[in-house]
This record gives sequence, C-alpha cells and structure tokens, in this order.
Amino acid sequence: MVKVGDSIPSVPVTISKPDNKVDLSQELASGKGVIIGVPAAFSPTCSNSHVPGWVASHKTGSAGKVYVLSVNDIFVVNAWAKSFEKDNTSKITFVADAGGDFTGALDLLFDASGLLGNKRAKRFVVTTEDGKVTGVHVEPDPSKVTVTDVEKVLGS
Amino acid sequence: MVKVGDSIPSVPVTISKPDNKVDLSQELASGKGVIIGVPAAFSPTCSNSHVPGWVASHKTGSAGKVYVLSVNDIFVVNAWAKSFEKDNTSKITFVADAGGDFTGALDLLFDASGLLGNKRAKRFVVTTEDGKVTGVHVEPDPSKVTVTDVEKVLGS
Repeated sequence: MVKVGDSIPSVPVTISKPDNKVDLSQELASGKGVIIGVPAAFSPTCSNSHVPGWVASHKTGSAGKVYVLSVNDIFVVNAWAKSFEKDNTSKITFVADAGGDFTGALDLLFDASGLLGNKRAKRFVVTTEDGKVTGVHVEPDPSKVTVTDVEKVLGS
Repeated sequence: MVKVGDSIPSVPVTISKPDNKVDLSQELASGKGVIIGVPAAFSPTCSNSHVPGWVASHKTGSAGKVYVLSVNDIFVVNAWAKSFEKDNTSKITFVADAGGDFTGALDLLFDASGLLGNKRAKRFVVTTEDGKVTGVHVEPDPSKVTVTDVEKVLGS
C-alpha cells in the first residue's frame, strides 16, 4: 500500500470530460494536495457523510488541490459531483478512475464485487506535498467515516 | 447471443435496494415483457435519447413489464432512475446488473474498458412472452439509437 514518502503514480485518470485524461502526479508536483478515495458515487456513506464534510469545509483552501476519486466512470462521477454543488465553489475536483488503474497503483483497491460488481477504492485520504505522499489514512471499514474525516485529517 | 425462443436466464439482478435480489426469469414467467439494456447510466445517449423515449411512451403499458438494465451498481441506477421521474408513473423498473452476470448470460456484454472501465451491456432490447424471448434488437453501434428505439420495437 502507498506510504509516506512515495511518489504519486503517473497513471492517467479522467476529469470533467470523457477524453480529458489527467496525470495527477503532474497536477500535484508542486504545493500541497489531497486525494480522497471513496468506494461508490451515490452510495449513502459517500454522499451523505464523507464527501459533504470535505465539500463544506472551509479548510480545504489551505489543503491545496483537493480531489475526490472513485472507481466509477466519468458520466457517473460528473452527475455525482453536480449533486453536491452546481457551481463548484469548494474548488474540489471530482475524478473518475473507471478501470481502477490509478487506485490499483496506490494499492488501495478492495473487492466490492458482491455489492458493487467490481473492485473499488477503499475509503482513504492521501495527502501530498511537492508530489510526495505526506500522509495515508485508510478506513478499516469502508462503510464508516472515522480517520478520513476532514477534521481528523486536516485538524480542527 | 440470446435468440428468439430462448429462456430468460435465472441470474439474480438488483432492484431498488442493495439487498433486493430479483430473478427476472420468474418476474417474466407469464405475460409480456421488455428488457432494455444500456451501456452507461448518466451517459448522454442513454440519458437524453434512448431511455426517455421508453419512459415517455404511452405504449409501454401494452408492452408488459418493462425493465431498463445497466451494468452499474444499485446506487448509481437508483440515482439515474430518479433523474427521469420522481414518481415512476411510467411503471418502468430500473435494474442494476453490477457485475454483468445477467447480461453476460444473455451474451450481450461488450468491452467498454477504455471509456467506462469494464464490460458493459450493449444497447439492446429483448422482448419476452411467458418467459421466452420473442425478439432481440441490438445496436451495431452502442452510442446510437436506431433499432432499439421504442417506436421501432413496439411499432408506431
């Protein structure tokens, strides 16, 4: 599993449009960043508890670039992003890792076949600075929000 | 690929709630039915063209039980269903075949890894009567709606 000091993998993800492939290792090469991994767009824990905390937080401004990533396709991710806010005032970027390749490179997939049909991202937060991982927080139970809560990660 | 005269496979799908597994071969054992397969919830073709035609059609009443099925998880399918109509006046049932097992049993999957990350349902319509397939309509190009249009399948 990804650990403090590792580089962000150079594996393309999709942002905003189906043909817009983005390399997060380049996006996060300088300054601070946060990658929030979630198992499933539109699922209750992700939609009602975990992500809204990050979207609403006034602290994300000082956290640098903040990405919410899931192993869903870009159509689902975009529709889900819109369900939180129409104008993206939080400056959070929603990321589709449809095939799970980026999440797999972090070794943060788990088998969710029974409920979700495939391997998904664990519920995690990875913090970065200048392209290197500075913190890794993974929920032992992906249906709960404890160590990946915005207050826990960024401090109250 | 599934053909006229075949039985509907007895492979569970998910409807409405994560733990509500349904056997469509039993649901469709008597009377008429239609299964509409789509590649991706929230994608433009599925959302703006194909499914609304079926939802809006006054003909679906005489078509029997009508199901819209995609290889998406139940959370995505439910959110997508709500985007069409809040009260389900069309009586169309939205079905999650998250792992693609039911669609695979019909041999109607295609590899959509590049855009969507995994195998998905082709754009198809299968009509049934008393549990047997009476018609199979598959789009040669899943991004288009031609032979699976409601008017084409049910007659104008």
